[in-house]
Amino acid sequence: MILCDIGNTTYHFKKYKKDFKISIKDDLTKLIKLKGEMYFISVNSKATKKLLDKFPYAIDLETMITFNTQYVGLGLDRKIVCSTINNGIVVDVGSAVTVDIMKNNKHKGGFILPGIGAYKKIYPKISKKLSFKFENDINLAKIPLNTSSAISYAILSSIVLPILKVYSDYNLPIYITGGDSKQILHCFKDIDIRYDKDLIFKSMKRIIKRDKEENKC
Amino acid sequence: MILCDIGNTTYHFKKYKKDFKISIKDDLTKLIKLKGEMYFISVNSKATKKLLDKFPYAIDLETMITFNTQYVGLGLDRKIVCSTINNGIVVDVGSAVTVDIMKNNKHKGGFILPGIGAYKKIYPKISKKLSFKFENDINLAKIPLNTSSAISYAILSSIVLPILKVYSDYNLPIYITGGDSKQILHCFKDIDIRYDKDLIFKSMKRIIKRDKEENKC
Repeated sequence: MILCDIGNTTYHFKKYKKDFKISIKDDLTKLIKLKGEMYFISVNSKATKKLLDKFPYAIDLETMITFNTQYVGLGLDRKIVCSTINNGIVVDVGSAVTVDIMKNNKHKGGFILPGIGAYKKIYPKISKKLSFKFENDINLAKIPLNTSSAISYAILSSIVLPILKVYSDYNLPIYITGGDSKQILHCFKDIDIRYDKDLIFKSMKRIIKRDKEENKC
Repeated sequence: MILCDIGNTTYHFKKYKKDFKISIKDDLTKLIKLKGEMYFISVNSKATKKLLDKFPYAIDLETMITFNTQYVGLGLDRKIVCSTINNGIVVDVGSAVTVDIMKNNKHKGGFILPGIGAYKKIYPKISKKLSFKFENDINLAKIPLNTSSAISYAILSSIVLPILKVYSDYNLPIYITGGDSKQILHCFKDIDIRYDKDLIFKSMKRIIKRDKEENKC
């Protein structure tokens, strides 16, 4: 079985224990040897069309889940992971950082921060003087003393503190995934935080398994 | 006396009780009737050159202050305000949001967040699905239930929470200024926060007055 998570910038494939990423700008012809059932989720309709051109039998997981929430416009990737977490704060650190709250199996809402890559691009556009080298090992307990540290500190604290606020407000464990998670993990000390780089793929598998079992009956 | 604060995007002039802003892209010829002593501060060398072409006798306040700090690369506008605050967290909400800590007349360091305008530009660049209308009256105690609220909540909390963290760490009053201050003021409840839209101009005047007194002796 092949799984694919189509994001804003990449196709993220998983086959057995291997996973690899391809830019959404890349040609998919080189993947033509990939054989077997393929399931995908997508937040990017243009990239979806491109995948379906090469793999017309790929199945959109969106057709396989129902997720009840009052939230209008929740991305499919967020729905997929949240639907497998009963109690927790679900954080996906990618091109955006999405934060969702699941309590007693109910989606309470969420918010969307810019990703680290997006932050890196903002500053030099505000002013040339705000060019900097990102220091992801910055210590948030120490107030910065130069421009690069001042910006790195601001980026990390503006992502980490809103997550810590809901952690403190809701008293729920944090489930964190996404390509840039490791850059912020060191900022969560003495916190119930569970990092799983495969959280989305595991959630996809669970939904496929559940669907197959239901169709057996 | 005319004062001018040259920022990344505007010339901000003050003459007596009147103040007005002009884009740094605008022609300054229309200001030619402005007469009298002119003092300026600038974080923008290109815009400074343009001002000096029209007002060659304008005086750069940078030549009139010494501000001791271990911080490397502190912008002149930050130096000017900090030099007149003995104890406080100095916040300037403009194209960037600068935060500086002054304790016992010593600059302890600071950090630089993106301004609200910069945040507004980031999201649609991450994904077209993240187009939104900014809601500056958002309540940070309520978890959002749609994309516009989810982004507005994220923008406000990622600016406000890092400021509240240093407020709690240092136990000092917050002095806040800058064109976009009013958009975040409602998020500071039960906090010792002092808003003054003229903080930079008042600091400039204090430095000019001090310099004139010193030169009398």
